[in-house]
Amino acid sequence: MSEASPGAPEITLLVLDAQPLPRLGRLTGKVRVLHADERTIGDRLPQADVLLVWDFLSDAVRRSWPGDGPRPRWVHTASAGVDHLMCPELAASDTVVTNARGIFDQPIAEYVAGLVLAFAKDLPGTLELQRQRRWRHRETGRLAGTRAVVVGSGPIGRAIGSTLSSLGVDTALVGRTARGDVHGPDELNQLLGRADWVICAAPLTGTTRGMFDARAFAAMRPSAHFINVGRGALVVEDDLSDALGKRRLAGAALDVFEEEPLPPDSPLWDVPGLIISPHMSGDTIGWRDDLGEQFLELYDIWANGNPLPNVVDKKRGYVPSHD
Amino acid sequence: MSEASPGAPEITLLVLDAQPLPRLGRLTGKVRVLHADERTIGDRLPQADVLLVWDFLSDAVRRSWPGDGPRPRWVHTASAGVDHLMCPELAASDTVVTNARGIFDQPIAEYVAGLVLAFAKDLPGTLELQRQRRWRHRETGRLAGTRAVVVGSGPIGRAIGSTLSSLGVDTALVGRTARGDVHGPDELNQLLGRADWVICAAPLTGTTRGMFDARAFAAMRPSAHFINVGRGALVVEDDLSDALGKRRLAGAALDVFEEEPLPPDSPLWDVPGLIISPHMSGDTIGWRDDLGEQFLELYDIWANGNPLPNVVDKKRGYVPSHD
Repeated sequence: MSEASPGAPEITLLVLDAQPLPRLGRLTGKVRVLHADERTIGDRLPQADVLLVWDFLSDAVRRSWPGDGPRPRWVHTASAGVDHLMCPELAASDTVVTNARGIFDQPIAEYVAGLVLAFAKDLPGTLELQRQRRWRHRETGRLAGTRAVVVGSGPIGRAIGSTLSSLGVDTALVGRTARGDVHGPDELNQLLGRADWVICAAPLTGTTRGMFDARAFAAMRPSAHFINVGRGALVVEDDLSDALGKRRLAGAALDVFEEEPLPPDSPLWDVPGLIISPHMSGDTIGWRDDLGEQFLELYDIWANGNPLPNVVDKKRGYVPSHD
Repeated sequence: MSEASPGAPEITLLVLDAQPLPRLGRLTGKVRVLHADERTIGDRLPQADVLLVWDFLSDAVRRSWPGDGPRPRWVHTASAGVDHLMCPELAASDTVVTNARGIFDQPIAEYVAGLVLAFAKDLPGTLELQRQRRWRHRETGRLAGTRAVVVGSGPIGRAIGSTLSSLGVDTALVGRTARGDVHGPDELNQLLGRADWVICAAPLTGTTRGMFDARAFAAMRPSAHFINVGRGALVVEDDLSDALGKRRLAGAALDVFEEEPLPPDSPLWDVPGLIISPHMSGDTIGWRDDLGEQFLELYDIWANGNPLPNVVDKKRGYVPSHD
């Protein structure tokens, strides 16, 4: 925004993009923009002051970062999670990493509420019976008065929690440490045992990887439903399939997977009681515009020498919440 | 509850039931209970002081009421709507009619919220793509900030309104007359033209029959979705099929139909964009218990000579709301 943006022509912005990035034209004249793909990013990293990870599905940054030469002073990823880009060398560096905190909160919360209601009201059963032209009345669940546990106490987890609460669901948040209204990991098992809905919205870190495994599913009630909108690797997919197949869980929905896109021959596609969606829970119409707008706002802050918001704790692997 | 219930042995309760009625045993010793089906109700009506219409799908009362002999002083129907039992002779009589006001409000509101979210997030598309094992990312709608019109300003319409409002939807209620926060019918067309979601939760009366016809659908935006949880005959089904087939509406969900059960050969089953459910929106687990409990509470009030709640305005065909 500022005409007095310091040394604009000397700033080089490198964009890792697979899809076109909206609104970047607003930087014309202020910034030299370079583009890179997975193949070229290694060569171009040393030339960049700023790296915008627009293709947030790629792990090219994590692979290329440890190479030779100077590195950007600031990396922004157009995603909430940073698991695809973090590596020890980036974590140890002086480079500031920011994320798209705030963009996905409400869309994901609505998506989760939709899944919870679909399970409570057996909408998948209704659609299947409709395909068969069968009229079969069923009694369904009431959402108000049920209990949810949301694992992940960042803005996405909080938005899920408050949306479910507004529907009358008694909701507990679990975070890395107990604080305020957030429960610590030591309470998780007990909370799982009383929950009707278990929702995973945690960042993928060394600690959380595979946390939803056979043991976690065994702690849940057979009437419970599990939903993952975090990252695929938070869940041991075989353990979830097993729990659903043996009816130790009533149902589940996965929006994220260890391997994305989920291959057509994955056995997950037809696990009974499992809803599969293609990593879209936060992606509402206009989301790319919102992400582009957010980067431009952060760019102005950075160019003016002010402290950036949304700074990722590179050791922990997410933006810490301040209560 | 009262031991001094006046003349208990002289009271005859006639129950029109197709399914067993829970909890009625609590009336043992206080009331003589007769049962009737569609075939026998005509003969038994003259013997009854009270008629409990437990089989609320039957129109046997409407057909039998005009016959000879005395008639019950009180009729209670285990349903919100009274369209299946009202006839001119009952309307003109001194008989008090009560309904199941309050039982279905929150369940139906949740059901509608589930349908709205399913449409916004394209859950039917997700389930269909899963059946085909296809990973296809789509951008979906955001619910917060959209606009809904709920036609029907009784407790069910109000519960739908407040549930949608809690999800950030700007919601307008339309009733028979404008009052307080309720819009009158003269505003309906304009409201339809700006709504993303049009929800019908109106009672079926002479005025409302067929109100959702080609003209109403033409007033809606092509991006709008229509949901009917009222009564089937509020909607001209052919007009809805036509609007959906020509993509003048983005989608619809019907839980109620002119003919129920919907026959297997009905063309409605595979109208594109139409979700069909078998009249179950209000029927959560335990609903029959709740209905039985409600009747017993009303019975105690009536037996003690106190004024009944939930009294239907027999001319209008529903329980008027008092603001």
